[in-house]
Amino acid sequence: MVFGNMGDDSATGVAFTRNPATGENQFYGEWLANAQGEDVVAGLRTPNPLNEATKTADTQHLPSLESSMPELYSRLAEIRTNLENHYTDMQDIEFTIEEGRLWMLQTRIGKRNGAAAIKMAVDMANEGMIDKKTALLRVRPSQLDELLHPMLDVEIEKRATYLTKGLPAGPGAATGQLVFTADDAEVWRKRGEKVILLREETSPEDVHGMHAAEAILTAKGGMTSHAALVARGWGKCCIVGCSDLHIDAPNREVYIKDTALKEGDWITMNGTAGKIYQGELGLIPADPDTHVEYKQLMDWADDVRELKIRTNADTPSDSEQAIKFGAEGIGLCRTEHMFFDEARILAMRKMILADNKKDRRAAVMELLPFQKKDFVGILKAMAGKPVTIRLLDPPLHEFITLTDNQVKELADHVGIDKSKVEKRITGLHELNPMLGHRGCRLGVAYPEITEMQARAILEAATELTKTGVDVFPEIMIPLVGTVTEFRDQETIVRKIAKDVASEFGMEVNYMVGTMIELPRACLTADEIAEHAEFFSFGTNDLTQTTYGFSRDDIGSFLPDYLDRKILAHDPFQSLDVNGVGKLVSMAVKLGRGVNENLKIGICGEHGGDPNSIHFCKENGLDYVSCSPFRVPIARLAATQAELHM
Amino acid sequence: MVFGNMGDDSATGVAFTRNPATGENQFYGEWLANAQGEDVVAGLRTPNPLNEATKTADTQHLPSLESSMPELYSRLAEIRTNLENHYTDMQDIEFTIEEGRLWMLQTRIGKRNGAAAIKMAVDMANEGMIDKKTALLRVRPSQLDELLHPMLDVEIEKRATYLTKGLPAGPGAATGQLVFTADDAEVWRKRGEKVILLREETSPEDVHGMHAAEAILTAKGGMTSHAALVARGWGKCCIVGCSDLHIDAPNREVYIKDTALKEGDWITMNGTAGKIYQGELGLIPADPDTHVEYKQLMDWADDVRELKIRTNADTPSDSEQAIKFGAEGIGLCRTEHMFFDEARILAMRKMILADNKKDRRAAVMELLPFQKKDFVGILKAMAGKPVTIRLLDPPLHEFITLTDNQVKELADHVGIDKSKVEKRITGLHELNPMLGHRGCRLGVAYPEITEMQARAILEAATELTKTGVDVFPEIMIPLVGTVTEFRDQETIVRKIAKDVASEFGMEVNYMVGTMIELPRACLTADEIAEHAEFFSFGTNDLTQTTYGFSRDDIGSFLPDYLDRKILAHDPFQSLDVNGVGKLVSMAVKLGRGVNENLKIGICGEHGGDPNSIHFCKENGLDYVSCSPFRVPIARLAATQAELHM
Repeated sequence: MVFGNMGDDSATGVAFTRNPATGENQFYGEWLANAQGEDVVAGLRTPNPLNEATKTADTQHLPSLESSMPELYSRLAEIRTNLENHYTDMQDIEFTIEEGRLWMLQTRIGKRNGAAAIKMAVDMANEGMIDKKTALLRVRPSQLDELLHPMLDVEIEKRATYLTKGLPAGPGAATGQLVFTADDAEVWRKRGEKVILLREETSPEDVHGMHAAEAILTAKGGMTSHAALVARGWGKCCIVGCSDLHIDAPNREVYIKDTALKEGDWITMNGTAGKIYQGELGLIPADPDTHVEYKQLMDWADDVRELKIRTNADTPSDSEQAIKFGAEGIGLCRTEHMFFDEARILAMRKMILADNKKDRRAAVMELLPFQKKDFVGILKAMAGKPVTIRLLDPPLHEFITLTDNQVKELADHVGIDKSKVEKRITGLHELNPMLGHRGCRLGVAYPEITEMQARAILEAATELTKTGVDVFPEIMIPLVGTVTEFRDQETIVRKIAKDVASEFGMEVNYMVGTMIELPRACLTADEIAEHAEFFSFGTNDLTQTTYGFSRDDIGSFLPDYLDRKILAHDPFQSLDVNGVGKLVSMAVKLGRGVNENLKIGICGEHGGDPNSIHFCKENGLDYVSCSPFRVPIARLAATQAELHM
Repeated sequence: MVFGNMGDDSATGVAFTRNPATGENQFYGEWLANAQGEDVVAGLRTPNPLNEATKTADTQHLPSLESSMPELYSRLAEIRTNLENHYTDMQDIEFTIEEGRLWMLQTRIGKRNGAAAIKMAVDMANEGMIDKKTALLRVRPSQLDELLHPMLDVEIEKRATYLTKGLPAGPGAATGQLVFTADDAEVWRKRGEKVILLREETSPEDVHGMHAAEAILTAKGGMTSHAALVARGWGKCCIVGCSDLHIDAPNREVYIKDTALKEGDWITMNGTAGKIYQGELGLIPADPDTHVEYKQLMDWADDVRELKIRTNADTPSDSEQAIKFGAEGIGLCRTEHMFFDEARILAMRKMILADNKKDRRAAVMELLPFQKKDFVGILKAMAGKPVTIRLLDPPLHEFITLTDNQVKELADHVGIDKSKVEKRITGLHELNPMLGHRGCRLGVAYPEITEMQARAILEAATELTKTGVDVFPEIMIPLVGTVTEFRDQETIVRKIAKDVASEFGMEVNYMVGTMIELPRACLTADEIAEHAEFFSFGTNDLTQTTYGFSRDDIGSFLPDYLDRKILAHDPFQSLDVNGVGKLVSMAVKLGRGVNENLKIGICGEHGGDPNSIHFCKENGLDYVSCSPFRVPIARLAATQAELHM
């Protein structure tokens, strides 16, 4: 900034043609009499308000430029209007007054926060200054984020006692009392407390406690660790990989640098920035529907948009949340999360321990009523909308990670030798589980799992259809690498569909398709598309295999790779267009080449990333699917992608 | 087989126009008087020899057809010549004699073993019956195998005491005394015993014992387990995954079904069939150079062949063996095997434990003289031929798998706390090491490793050049997924090359290239080829990532996949043309598109597989590289590929 030299009746100031914090159409700024521009910037003297209308309680006693130099102020106000009309956007203006004369020093497009960006864009369109298309392009999709989560007030955060920092894994802010186990989180929550769950790292068995907590904080793990993925899926505040935490779990204490905190102590987290503060701080609640301009902008966006936005949701409540945010279907309903409930996991473990097909089938079939209930709930919540349900995906050992005591209990319950249980667990151990016996490889080896899941889905769909609910289940075979795997599993599903149709005396809508998440599936997409009715790109795993990166293990080198620009960005955050993207394009082309009606979507983490959404639109996908809290972001990003085409 | 009904002066028989066991140009067969065809086949009666010339000690006393029915025999011999001349290949003839009249029942191309196939092909070409091209196409490359390894005599094997079966991981036969540890193998070998090393499974620390043993036998592991890979690399007999073995290592005993064997007991293995026999059985030694027709055939093959055949070899002795078998260079010299020697692994461990760059560099530089000596040995053994040396590839934890005692020893030696060693080892643990911190990701994180290795190679090359030895080192950066990784490592290598050149006052030939073993490297091969001077496809890892298969873990489902035809063949044995092959073709096209002189080869296990070699030729590769004992097979397969084009 360059300001002139100041004389006696001189002044200098900075002004915005609209309020950059709220977006309101008011002339807003600061000025100092007899001052250098640096004085305004340096903050050594408290600047004065620009005009009477924008005075606050804090600045009520200070002179405004409007009252001090009314003529010059009205000249400046006139210039403000001219500049904004000329540039058709909010301007950040620097001015100086030298010996009673107004000099304009600089004007540029003003920075604004998310809420202000939305308000300005919508207001300017309504005022006729810009058209709707321009308004839609004025808001960065990520700027919607602050409306979708509770946030910390900037001023409160400035004054808070900062403890430490971790990776910003789940956005928004949260405040609560520290608990050290998932069970405690649930118990405290039940008695009405707000808690933050603190763990070294989380595992599927912590999910009930994670759900009960306001936020999750872990010492280990990266942006795609279990805690991070689960939290983002729920739109929950989460900070991971916070290496300053030294957790003494048996004593329920944690040491953060020189601060010791114990169970029940309050902390506040800014998950958007990855920052942790001591004590209970006030939050600004999220309620985008009350934001008039947000609703307006999203309506305009939806009018333009053709790319459908679905959500990744595994429960009826997630589904309902996502619908509120504008989801048009479920793109990924994972079924494995449904198995960790106590009653169900026992059946799952019996299935794993069975040494013959009969016992295995009996154990699997115990799960049928549970699964059916799950699907009734979700399909009903998504009535009239498509729901893609992925068949069981993770390796079996994830269901049987047990302590010594638990092994004994399980052995007693099932009535077999403890050593037999141990032997089976050891036998399931894999050197590279990501590349092991999982996905459809499970269904091929244990067809009864596929049968049970297909039956649960189709019976649920049939019963709902009978009661007049419109259902569109899309059954998705995971981790297909060869068309023969797809055919094997598809055959089972279609046979069950036929059986269910004859048992219930009616046929229902359903599709069978596959998750495209291996390079080989992309390379042979034409073969697969001859049988599959839809493709859904699982870009998380596709990125893992294309790069040869294990998301769980890249923590040891990814930060360095990003720092040294060996990678321009984390390919798990934004789709790698040059590499992974080529496989996606190829698969779309090969797939549509043999089946022009092939429905194609994406359900990896990238489904909520604006750059990746651009790529999906350019490549002719029908939909993207993302976590519920990213649905509005995806809606705007998709609209912008279409406006750019 | 259909034979007529037989009368009194009747007979029936089977004859080959040449000897199917030896390939000799002699009329060979069996007959029975007053017999049905089934009698010959069923083996209830001992058949008679066809003629006097082919009588053996066992059949000397039996009547030949030549002596019993001379006129009919000479008529049959005449027909034999006509048939062979007509079909220009060895015929398997069925005949019958009814009431003094000869009837021809059937003729077809006769089956033959490998040695016979070679002899017949070369003889027929020399006799002018077929041309050289036809001769070259008559021998299946895999038929050379029996000439390249000691074999069990079929008759001896029939009478031997069969114990059990495993996976045929390394071909040929071996006989030796059982030992239960790698150290014992080495000790027994040193005192002149022939041993077979028996292990649950092997690890890099067993390599010295595996080397000392005649053969390796493991209870666990698949066709691509550590034992299998190492054994095949050496052309050593090996049987893995033999689940009938119940090893009692502390007592040095093994139970195989009802048989108990102890240390020092003899067994004999047929590695080609995966069969294990009790006791010491005689073997037929391998010495292909003494086989006149083999040499002749291979000379003809080399005259035609343009595709170069290199070998995967890590030591001067392997290199020499490969040259004897016709290798024209080294396509893959792995450097990590060089680090397991006792003195070296200590430096490696010090490097891993170093908590600062200075100590790390000092530890790495301790390895320089060792590495340099390794490279002098190999480059000298391969004088005049190119040698591709791959920089360090495996994850660091492979070098620091320690027992509790070893941890203590190491801590004492390095002078740090035991807990610190343990913490570092735990820190190196990865969930999916195959997709973790390895390959060039190591060199990027620890550039001193790349510097040390580049210096060792280039100093070795310079010293040899000074003494008049022609060297062509090709420095290969492993596991590149982005051109930026390649550039990072290439820059280090070229800088060291410049330093060495100025220190020694001379420049040497060298190239810098990369192993293409990730889908992303194939997809961005054009970017990489702008800088890399050569590509070498690492099709093992490329297959793992393209399919999302961990070679270590597919044992739980691959056999079932093959049985049920979900996979037509094991993609680690023969290149998956439809999937992995598409990536290879794409990379060749993209790479040569920006650099038409780009040297391209393949160094995965597929380099020794005839079908894969066909694919490599079709795709314009310059060379294939395989284990020394597969070099002759590759030479013939490459020739056939060219003849088919």
